[in-house]
Amino acid sequence: MRMVDLIEKKRDGRELTEEEISFIINGYTDGTIPDYQISAFTMAVFFQGMTEKERADLTMAMVHSGDVIDLSAIEGIKVDKHSTGGVGDTTTLVLGPLVAAVGVPVAKMSGRGLGHTGGTIDKLEAVKGFHVEIDKEEFIKLVNKNKVAVIGQSGNLTPADKKLYALRDVTATVNSIPLIASSIMSKKIAAGADAICLDVKTGAGAFMKSLDDSRELAEAMVRIGNNVGRKTMAIISDMSQPLGYAIGNALEVKEAIDTLKGQGPKDLSELCLTLGSQMVYLAEKADSIEAARELLEEAIKSGKALETFKLFLESQGGDASVVDHPERLPQAPFKLELPAKVSGYVAEITADSIGTAAMILGAGRATKESEIDLSVGLVLNKKIGDKVEAGESLVTIYSNTENIDDVKQRLYEHIKVIDKKVDAPELIYEVITG
Amino acid sequence: MRMVDLIEKKRDGRELTEEEISFIINGYTDGTIPDYQISAFTMAVFFQGMTEKERADLTMAMVHSGDVIDLSAIEGIKVDKHSTGGVGDTTTLVLGPLVAAVGVPVAKMSGRGLGHTGGTIDKLEAVKGFHVEIDKEEFIKLVNKNKVAVIGQSGNLTPADKKLYALRDVTATVNSIPLIASSIMSKKIAAGADAICLDVKTGAGAFMKSLDDSRELAEAMVRIGNNVGRKTMAIISDMSQPLGYAIGNALEVKEAIDTLKGQGPKDLSELCLTLGSQMVYLAEKADSIEAARELLEEAIKSGKALETFKLFLESQGGDASVVDHPERLPQAPFKLELPAKVSGYVAEITADSIGTAAMILGAGRATKESEIDLSVGLVLNKKIGDKVEAGESLVTIYSNTENIDDVKQRLYEHIKVIDKKVDAPELIYEVITG
Repeated sequence: MRMVDLIEKKRDGRELTEEEISFIINGYTDGTIPDYQISAFTMAVFFQGMTEKERADLTMAMVHSGDVIDLSAIEGIKVDKHSTGGVGDTTTLVLGPLVAAVGVPVAKMSGRGLGHTGGTIDKLEAVKGFHVEIDKEEFIKLVNKNKVAVIGQSGNLTPADKKLYALRDVTATVNSIPLIASSIMSKKIAAGADAICLDVKTGAGAFMKSLDDSRELAEAMVRIGNNVGRKTMAIISDMSQPLGYAIGNALEVKEAIDTLKGQGPKDLSELCLTLGSQMVYLAEKADSIEAARELLEEAIKSGKALETFKLFLESQGGDASVVDHPERLPQAPFKLELPAKVSGYVAEITADSIGTAAMILGAGRATKESEIDLSVGLVLNKKIGDKVEAGESLVTIYSNTENIDDVKQRLYEHIKVIDKKVDAPELIYEVITG
Repeated sequence: MRMVDLIEKKRDGRELTEEEISFIINGYTDGTIPDYQISAFTMAVFFQGMTEKERADLTMAMVHSGDVIDLSAIEGIKVDKHSTGGVGDTTTLVLGPLVAAVGVPVAKMSGRGLGHTGGTIDKLEAVKGFHVEIDKEEFIKLVNKNKVAVIGQSGNLTPADKKLYALRDVTATVNSIPLIASSIMSKKIAAGADAICLDVKTGAGAFMKSLDDSRELAEAMVRIGNNVGRKTMAIISDMSQPLGYAIGNALEVKEAIDTLKGQGPKDLSELCLTLGSQMVYLAEKADSIEAARELLEEAIKSGKALETFKLFLESQGGDASVVDHPERLPQAPFKLELPAKVSGYVAEITADSIGTAAMILGAGRATKESEIDLSVGLVLNKKIGDKVEAGESLVTIYSNTENIDDVKQRLYEHIKVIDKKVDAPELIYEVITG
């Protein structure tokens, strides 16, 4: 087999076999196929796409390019959730304890990552003492005991995907649905998921800006999952404005606690219940989505969800008293308000620009070397559709300096208040099942 | 400027500026842009094409990536001829002395190359003593004196094109009209041509198998030439069967001599007159193509063309007596016939397969290291449309061994004789002017 012939085959729109796709991925992983052939190949994929079978084969070839986590020692169906990323997305912090409370095992491998705020691990480290440096035996013991645990990323998972992504990033081939879908799915499967629940974001703050693109990606991932024997579902949710109110690490932990108490922002609560219902259903802990939702609502009402969160924090060394005393979370030295300049209705809160404002305050990493300030961030006081009076605070800014004119200016630019009534955007556009 | 943005621009079908194309070609030449970005770029070009302006800019960027030959010391308009390659193509050997005989300066830089037979220099070296190792001053003096001289390739011409071609070859991006056209044109322009006459072959023995593709390539090159200030014309000629009768180095020299005497094969003679007329017209040595043709016919009839060939050979150390004594050219030890198995009409002589048979005999190089046997090759006794009797010789085989069953079998396979009358193929399909 020669790589040049496989590039030509894809270039001419013919379907590659499983054997040919393995040849490409194995050759790229072990270095026998050079970058310049792979980049020509990915550009050909950009133009010609991939068939459903090719996507499944590519996903599994990437899974097998490295270590595959074995979670079989954990009882029950391991359901993993994945979000395509957005601003102020606190769902992971809520969903872990929430579905664990009704018996769904959550064995989460998580990272730190670049972005507007830190990753799940950074956020959890806002709880004093909490740590993810546990070994695999301890991790599995904790999931079996508490139904939820988080471990830092370790092992050599999907090295082909890592190499491929780095190459796509510098060759203008990131934006290809088959490549994005198999990249995400390969990571979830290599991390040991039996079933996968996807939250594909759409709008200004999302990777996919249009509903059509989001739907295409969601459907592509659901098909891959079901074709390779992992029950998979997806929802498409709004990311035109940030999710919930809080954007920042400690601020989001507090918001997660509120949500587990049944006192969270409406949109975040609703999204967690929708995703959570899917997870419970996929884990076969309920016979229907509706029954699953009832179980979750009951877990919140009874305090079981909050109790599970406490147990989870304690078991990994964290100070669980923050649940009742959120003031024990890191506090920013300055708390500043952003008063509305005019009265009217909030028409726009551009998610990605608001996220960047949080990053400028120090809530996220611009580069791998950046240090995160866990205390800082933003809390929105108004969301799209809300009425506001001139002088009323649009946003509360938690900062480590008073000198934040640039952040304020950015926020004013990206929060539009108009004099006409505005409807709040839809939160959940679609639910896609196998 | 970032290369990834330029790949994306081309990927999305937007036109690159002259500055952007220079950035790409200069960066690739000096190594600051890596292979993997260029191969993604060329694949994007494969799918999106290039505008007329982009093609001209790419051509000139490649010209300026290395040395540009200065032929201004040669009087008159320097017209270069280029053929896209075929089997038994003896036109260069004929055209040089032919157009020189009517005052068109031919300053030919030539190579050896891979293929069914050697390059122009290999063929000319069949004449004892002939050599191309002359310096630039001597070369220019000879062109001014005799109107024709050949020099070996030297200097660092179009390094960007060399690098790009090698990369395209292993990334399935050879077959792109804008890239092929600018590659050819950049080499001609860097070699100092003021005007360019192109012979684009079409059919089984050509790089472009279909007339549509050949026309697209021809038109692309003519437009590039005229857009960058080099008067350019093209013809599309048949390469379904080999051109002329001879395929082999010394054999083609003899055929060239015959043609300069007015006794050459009909198709080769006609093609040389057609291309030659264009060259004479482009060199402004005649007011019309028709007048140019009359000049050339007169030069053959008067013996002036043959005289010019002798002078050319002598001036570069060659034994010009071969013109009157072709038996002084290298002679193969064995001369074998290929008798027709049935009577009928020749319907097919697949050019590329016949060429490969000549290469197997030793007439061409399979790899850079191969040694050429200048004496061996094939002479067709019949061409498409000719009547043949069973037992009559289809081909005379000049060989250095009697053991050529494989060659005979290949020839029988690719020369089809049928019982129905067949028309000879058209020789010249189209003439394309600015």
